[in-house]
Amino acid sequence: MTGFPGRPSLNNTHVLPKYTNNSLDVSLRMLHLKLDHTITGMSGWMALLGRPLIHCGRTSSSQLRHASRLVFQSHGAPSQVLKYESFPTPVEPSDPQNVLVRMLMAPIHPADINTIQGAYPITPDLPAVGGGEGLGVVVMAGGAVTHLAPGDWVIPAGNMTGTWTTHTQGPAEAFVKIRKDIPEIAAATLRTNPSTAYRMLKDFVQLGPDDWVIQNGANSAVGQAVIQIAKHWKLHTVNIVRARDNIDALKHQLQNLGADFVLTEEEFRKWTEIREGRLPKPRLALNCVGGSSATELSKCLSNSAVMVTYGGMSLKPVTVATSGLIFKDIAIRGFWLSRWLSEHANGDERIKMFSELAGMCKDGVLTAPVHQTVSLKDFKASVDNTLKGFKGGKFIFDMTKEKQNGA
Amino acid sequence: MTGFPGRPSLNNTHVLPKYTNNSLDVSLRMLHLKLDHTITGMSGWMALLGRPLIHCGRTSSSQLRHASRLVFQSHGAPSQVLKYESFPTPVEPSDPQNVLVRMLMAPIHPADINTIQGAYPITPDLPAVGGGEGLGVVVMAGGAVTHLAPGDWVIPAGNMTGTWTTHTQGPAEAFVKIRKDIPEIAAATLRTNPSTAYRMLKDFVQLGPDDWVIQNGANSAVGQAVIQIAKHWKLHTVNIVRARDNIDALKHQLQNLGADFVLTEEEFRKWTEIREGRLPKPRLALNCVGGSSATELSKCLSNSAVMVTYGGMSLKPVTVATSGLIFKDIAIRGFWLSRWLSEHANGDERIKMFSELAGMCKDGVLTAPVHQTVSLKDFKASVDNTLKGFKGGKFIFDMTKEKQNGA
Repeated sequence: MTGFPGRPSLNNTHVLPKYTNNSLDVSLRMLHLKLDHTITGMSGWMALLGRPLIHCGRTSSSQLRHASRLVFQSHGAPSQVLKYESFPTPVEPSDPQNVLVRMLMAPIHPADINTIQGAYPITPDLPAVGGGEGLGVVVMAGGAVTHLAPGDWVIPAGNMTGTWTTHTQGPAEAFVKIRKDIPEIAAATLRTNPSTAYRMLKDFVQLGPDDWVIQNGANSAVGQAVIQIAKHWKLHTVNIVRARDNIDALKHQLQNLGADFVLTEEEFRKWTEIREGRLPKPRLALNCVGGSSATELSKCLSNSAVMVTYGGMSLKPVTVATSGLIFKDIAIRGFWLSRWLSEHANGDERIKMFSELAGMCKDGVLTAPVHQTVSLKDFKASVDNTLKGFKGGKFIFDMTKEKQNGA
Repeated sequence: MTGFPGRPSLNNTHVLPKYTNNSLDVSLRMLHLKLDHTITGMSGWMALLGRPLIHCGRTSSSQLRHASRLVFQSHGAPSQVLKYESFPTPVEPSDPQNVLVRMLMAPIHPADINTIQGAYPITPDLPAVGGGEGLGVVVMAGGAVTHLAPGDWVIPAGNMTGTWTTHTQGPAEAFVKIRKDIPEIAAATLRTNPSTAYRMLKDFVQLGPDDWVIQNGANSAVGQAVIQIAKHWKLHTVNIVRARDNIDALKHQLQNLGADFVLTEEEFRKWTEIREGRLPKPRLALNCVGGSSATELSKCLSNSAVMVTYGGMSLKPVTVATSGLIFKDIAIRGFWLSRWLSEHANGDERIKMFSELAGMCKDGVLTAPVHQTVSLKDFKASVDNTLKGFKGGKFIFDMTKEKQNGA
């Protein structure tokens, strides 16, 4: 037993407030409707990892200090119900199929907040550890584990709960190995937002080089990934954002990522490039806003185009013209990564996607979203602000800070 | 040359005003948006038949009297721009590929009215003969025609213009032969409404016995066909209609067609059978109303269900909850028969569908919609009333009345 392997130095934590507005990022924050069913057959950390962690840890005979996590015993406002707690760290996997993992980084997504509130269709058994994605490093692998070894970087293979912790363990198949030569922040945020962008660009319309895609909420973390992946795949993007004081800086930032056009909602309504035929009509629209923003997107699409909704920031439903549905064969669809991961829990497609996305990170094609790191202990402001349109970028827990604080 | 073959006696023309309200029938009447493109590569009567008829007729050397038709030279209010005119009837096909057809019956669809108004995405070259569907009998086949012979009943094979006439001709491939042992009215109205119902029940969701379908505007001609075809295929239907004075009679009528449930919009909002799990959630919704009616339909659907829009009677767009799109994977689609026919102009699927539908008519599974016959000459009231929510059922031109009047 060698304890926890070392990790690369943390050199990619930066704050770029002048370019950021996270308000469109929190695309799912308003979806407080509790559906009358949940996804069954869920795989990954939520089903496999959140619960065992809490119990295994307590029953381990040999313990290390300074392990900590954010646990909620009941649903409610995250800053109220989340508790920072120390817990005894297991020093070996409790099962030969398990791996013991030390967490490095874990983002705070709007969906994580909704889960704690009890306002998300996925409701883990309580008590539960918060968080749905992150990057860990394997500390020790059980005797029956063949594809993971100490030192490997891992991300959650499937759906979520329990990444806001310094230490965790679970069945090896709940983790996917990820290359170590990419920024930690990029690896820790690969599973949700870039995967959502990747799937939406790939699964709804067969796009070829020079096809056009249009999106609103283009400065969201998903939107930023859409711009970059689309650029890499030789697709063009029209990107709609809300007007703001620093709009030129935001436009510049998104253009630097590869956006062909960046327009405010107001500018887009007067924009004639598509309407007058100077640009091809987009074959795919990505909507995380709803209301009139989604309606405007749907109006500019080509025949048989698809508009995919993955968020509803405006709180308004998706409204489309009857004529577009009938005469232009526009299809209105939705995308939820949790569903996709559940449905592809055992498929190679998931591994292929993570590998491709990590390759894009390595090549500098895909960069981590604008963010700000925080320690687990200092969670209150960040969980409160995640649903408030925080301007400093995405909050990401840096568990190495816990170690520094507590060791 | 034998002139026009005889036809079976007209024994199925009936008026059932007490059961009818055509207002939901005119599902496309409000779609006055003129799209910025039209379907190209159109087949059938519109492209092949409407124009040649007018010109061929005038250049024929040998002519019969008493041929008549409804022609419009410009777009506008149908009762204003439509002109009843006599024209010289060609006595033989002008081309060896053509057939000469005497029309028996032709319905007045809302889409026909919109076409004359210039408010439909299909805009025939002017002057044009009105009407998009109907039943004819082959008078004479050109020398190169192999699959049609004098006496055969035919309906338009593809898209539309030019059925409101006593005589027409066009390439044989613009016509499909239809069995003669079914009611004329059923044959004359098979191509549009029952075909729309058939395709919507077949092409969007793979339905199996005992699956449930929900629809609004259930007393429309399409809605009536949906009830009957669904019943034949062992599907169950929940049918939503607008409240009216004679609601019990309407419910009784639709139940007689095979409807499992018939509810007014108001009753449906309070209805708990689906919500509380006593009935399975429908996997397919058919919407010809839009607005809150469509929203309510979308809310009761199963995961991964599809809502297909084929009309917009309420004048309001289609609005669906963001959560339904994302978390329930509800897809919002549209259906337009004209597009389907264009895309399947040369396929066997079209012939198979017409044959199956005609078989259903023969077996009494599918009955003609409630209707009222009128003569071409007396077109004004019927074209005006088609968009006004006429209560007496669908108007159908009976061209044999022209013959009686003019012969």
